[in-house]
Amino acid sequence: MTGPVAAGRHYPGEEKKIVALCGGVGGAKLALGLERISQPGTTTIVVNVGDDFEHLGLRICPDIDTVLYTLGNLSDQERGWGRAEESWNFIENVKRLGGDDWFRLGDKDLALHVTRTQHLHRGGSLSDFVARAAKLLDIRSNIVPATDEVISTMIDTDQGVLPFQEYFVKLRCVPRIKSIQFEGAASAVAAPGVLSALSDPALHAIIICPSNPYLSVDPILAIPGITAALRNSSAPVIAISPIVGGAAIKGPTAKIMTELNFAPSQRSIAAHYQGLIDALFVDVSDESEARGLSVQTFVVPTVMTTIEQKIQLARDVIDAAASLRVNSLSHRGAAR
Amino acid sequence: MTGPVAAGRHYPGEEKKIVALCGGVGGAKLALGLERISQPGTTTIVVNVGDDFEHLGLRICPDIDTVLYTLGNLSDQERGWGRAEESWNFIENVKRLGGDDWFRLGDKDLALHVTRTQHLHRGGSLSDFVARAAKLLDIRSNIVPATDEVISTMIDTDQGVLPFQEYFVKLRCVPRIKSIQFEGAASAVAAPGVLSALSDPALHAIIICPSNPYLSVDPILAIPGITAALRNSSAPVIAISPIVGGAAIKGPTAKIMTELNFAPSQRSIAAHYQGLIDALFVDVSDESEARGLSVQTFVVPTVMTTIEQKIQLARDVIDAAASLRVNSLSHRGAAR
Repeated sequence: MTGPVAAGRHYPGEEKKIVALCGGVGGAKLALGLERISQPGTTTIVVNVGDDFEHLGLRICPDIDTVLYTLGNLSDQERGWGRAEESWNFIENVKRLGGDDWFRLGDKDLALHVTRTQHLHRGGSLSDFVARAAKLLDIRSNIVPATDEVISTMIDTDQGVLPFQEYFVKLRCVPRIKSIQFEGAASAVAAPGVLSALSDPALHAIIICPSNPYLSVDPILAIPGITAALRNSSAPVIAISPIVGGAAIKGPTAKIMTELNFAPSQRSIAAHYQGLIDALFVDVSDESEARGLSVQTFVVPTVMTTIEQKIQLARDVIDAAASLRVNSLSHRGAAR
Repeated sequence: MTGPVAAGRHYPGEEKKIVALCGGVGGAKLALGLERISQPGTTTIVVNVGDDFEHLGLRICPDIDTVLYTLGNLSDQERGWGRAEESWNFIENVKRLGGDDWFRLGDKDLALHVTRTQHLHRGGSLSDFVARAAKLLDIRSNIVPATDEVISTMIDTDQGVLPFQEYFVKLRCVPRIKSIQFEGAASAVAAPGVLSALSDPALHAIIICPSNPYLSVDPILAIPGITAALRNSSAPVIAISPIVGGAAIKGPTAKIMTELNFAPSQRSIAAHYQGLIDALFVDVSDESEARGLSVQTFVVPTVMTTIEQKIQLARDVIDAAASLRVNSLSHRGAAR
């Protein structure tokens, strides 16, 4: 993150109200773009909690923390997760004491886990903790967990049913996926502010970030009321495909899609979000495939390596939402 | 810790069975001397838990950890507490997140607190955890918390009743002490192995380390059965005075004694342990005062700066116990 755009925290901001549904690293890139161009409090990032788990007695929320660190300018860009300039003295000594070290908790990172666990044990809510942390990290967006309740993404694989982090980190996505369940989702309640943000008549757009649809977005959509709120919103719903040229930029999306018998293609993503979205953003490298999709597409560069690319994609999505509002021609809107 | 004696972990060992009652830094120095000259499993260090507290949702056991780190050759000799070559990334980020940072938890140190808290939350005992940690740190002594239950040393001061660590660390012993209570001690049960070690007919000596009698040793003695076990033991009970030349080597012992209306003298220490000990070790600088005490005294150097001094004092105490056993002339023994 270099250059004049990245340096300025007071970039002239959009005042339009945005809600973005977001997973971890891929989604957080677009969330950062939105953060940089939004006025304080106008953008709400609803973050997946299906990856959350208890480890070493601590409540770990990988996607929320990735969003907090990314928007708080604390994330490690090269490693792709956790905090920059991290040290590992804690986890190395946990190992020495016979504890689990397969999930690497950094010393700086640990501050979030320990204070969050204490907050939750005292009866505080996850959303209160996240809001407070975001404020202390000078983040201008509202960061909200999808729910304050516990949802556990469980992966049914050829090696048995695995909690998400065991599949994802411990076993490095090697087991073949048969199906995915979100334990607790059906009875969960959306966190305070989520449904009201989605049903705000002044909402400009609902954005589904380029996160893994099956692992990161679906656990949000599985919470009662959220999918309905997307369908009923007067604002256009726009998804950014995480697939670029038949592969995922980050993470196991393509492998998972193949194992679930979906081709890792824009067509599969469009089909997955069919009836829920008004438009799909597709990378320029997939322009030819975009033409044949049943949903309206916007073909722009979606690979976000630099901060300028993140901001540009955020601007493109906001502009697309404006055009969709003017035309009011979305499939979803027309069907309502 | 330099030199040939310190380097060797396989120093020709004492096979005599020893139990030592121990607080934090001062006591741990003698415990290290005993550790270095004892055969594995022959020395039992019973450690104060009155200073333990819950902080940031973690169970912190300062005296136990000081003993573990000291005997495990991990302690910071210059700072006087915590681990050597420590880093502080965790606590600095806790502060940034609005959390308490008055009790400085190091990144390496944290491994013990987190794994212990997890162990306790799962229903494990403190003594099991400590025994396992000691084994993993290649410690040959048995390290045992005085009890597996929670005892809280509470300090009644001119600023109100304070939990020990708030008085000791947060307020740096500034409030004037009026009295000291050990909450939970009267109904606590000695940890497994404590009473059996104290009543072992083959026991060579019971040593009260040069820890603060009021803050570190009394909470051990307050646990039902422990004082009686000392009185009934066939082995001599020997205390090492923490006072040298009218002051304490370490910590607030002298200030506390003054506030409790005791002169910070060998006479006060002898009176405190009256009827419980067979002999008191007094530093050579207090030789003249030692002559007038009502308890048998051994006058040797008790200041333990180097590892050689720690080992020498351990040897002196073991030798003194042998002479007391031969003579069987202890006040306590004669009165029984």
